[in-house]
Amino acid sequence: MGEFHPFDIATQLTKTSDFYHGHTSEAYANMIGPFGGIVASTLLRAILEHPERLGEPGALTINYAAPVANGGFDIKATPTRTNRSTQHWYIELSQNKKTVITGTAVTAERRETWSSTDISFPNVPSVNELKRASISAAPPWLNNYDIRIIKGAPLALLQSNLNNNQNSTTLQWIQDYPKRKIDFLSLTAMCDAFFPRIWVRRKEMVPIGTVSLTIYFHADSETLKAHGSREVLGHTRAIKFYDGFFDQTGELWSPDGELLATTSQFVYYKS
Amino acid sequence: MGEFHPFDIATQLTKTSDFYHGHTSEAYANMIGPFGGIVASTLLRAILEHPERLGEPGALTINYAAPVANGGFDIKATPTRTNRSTQHWYIELSQNKKTVITGTAVTAERRETWSSTDISFPNVPSVNELKRASISAAPPWLNNYDIRIIKGAPLALLQSNLNNNQNSTTLQWIQDYPKRKIDFLSLTAMCDAFFPRIWVRRKEMVPIGTVSLTIYFHADSETLKAHGSREVLGHTRAIKFYDGFFDQTGELWSPDGELLATTSQFVYYKS
Repeated sequence: MGEFHPFDIATQLTKTSDFYHGHTSEAYANMIGPFGGIVASTLLRAILEHPERLGEPGALTINYAAPVANGGFDIKATPTRTNRSTQHWYIELSQNKKTVITGTAVTAERRETWSSTDISFPNVPSVNELKRASISAAPPWLNNYDIRIIKGAPLALLQSNLNNNQNSTTLQWIQDYPKRKIDFLSLTAMCDAFFPRIWVRRKEMVPIGTVSLTIYFHADSETLKAHGSREVLGHTRAIKFYDGFFDQTGELWSPDGELLATTSQFVYYKS
Repeated sequence: MGEFHPFDIATQLTKTSDFYHGHTSEAYANMIGPFGGIVASTLLRAILEHPERLGEPGALTINYAAPVANGGFDIKATPTRTNRSTQHWYIELSQNKKTVITGTAVTAERRETWSSTDISFPNVPSVNELKRASISAAPPWLNNYDIRIIKGAPLALLQSNLNNNQNSTTLQWIQDYPKRKIDFLSLTAMCDAFFPRIWVRRKEMVPIGTVSLTIYFHADSETLKAHGSREVLGHTRAIKFYDGFFDQTGELWSPDGELLATTSQFVYYKS
């Protein structure tokens, strides 16, 4: 694993003087272009590999301005402001000199202080009590995840009765397949690995596309090291679907009840 | 009102060839520098006034990289990618040529289609049944809002028993004071007008600062026109406080149960 896990290959970057150069990976292909989670991870990786980077990821916003074409791409990561313990970044992914993805990030040095989680770990069966979701005609990237749905399966994909509450909430266990020790990059990708809420809410598989994704990290690298390659509990729901765009908010937990990240996204849909 | 409301003066911009030039307003001053909500509105205004702008605000992320100093500032709004019905933006506010605030936004043309709100309007008393919160030693910007707290008053500011549920949730009615017809700009500012969650959760007024703010708009200009100058219901909570940073998520509703916006922020705290 490690260096040779498909995830590490998919997010690999080569530094030239001005850019980080990468290449889309067939293993993480989506229906059109790459899986959005791997795109977000790759942009974050450019920041983490930047020689001037200060601290660890705090907040990340990735905007999907246009579809990423299969092939090579360039990423430019610019520290826009460096403070004593926080640093702000602007990131752009381009292909043929056209902007395809933009993003901003905050990295920060944390100091141990009063901390508290204000919501409870959901009451769920353990991962071993569930079967891996088997999705017919799944896009390639899904094969790199072991997803076990507790509640809120995509009605538009699975003929299941796991969704009987008439809302768009999903609870699922997720982990890399094959297993891989979690880090900020894989956690970022998992934040985008929920099925589109509209496919859970409705029985039709309408066209969708994430427009903007935001992640707040509530863990440091020590927490992630302690998590290891265990599964992650994802909990997500949509709040509003309105004339072509819906939101999605979610939480990612370790199985022992540590909240690792919160996330939201704004998604285009055609209906 | 209209042009002459303090809000419109505070967000006013003059266009030069490369930049939009603005000036901080004493009316919206915070303890240090301007209220973050007025900063976010001013950056959004640069996009809305841009001659190439397509559609209405969909998603907005504002990063507070450094404190805005009282005085003049320059904003540069750049359309990074223009598609058929969506447009992506990068925005920067600078002072003395140093980056102070960065942001990204998506504007979009909506088309009427299947829509749904998946959460219910909270069960709350009407605005007239409540008194305006009176805060001793309030920073100037608060005087431009009529805030009526239903639940979750800041313990660190108010000697009240409105918070007796030991969590960081707040429900409040908010409107401009004096009244002003709502628009995307004032809605943006209201998304940042919640008291910091840590002042609700704890009795101490520890130093805080928003690092990154994200807003998803779930209304178009027609919805906002219909809303007029009525009050807005704000509902917010923190999920996790961890070693110097906490998150805050929230919803803004019209009094007739229309969800106008969802928002999240990542906030630095010293404890």
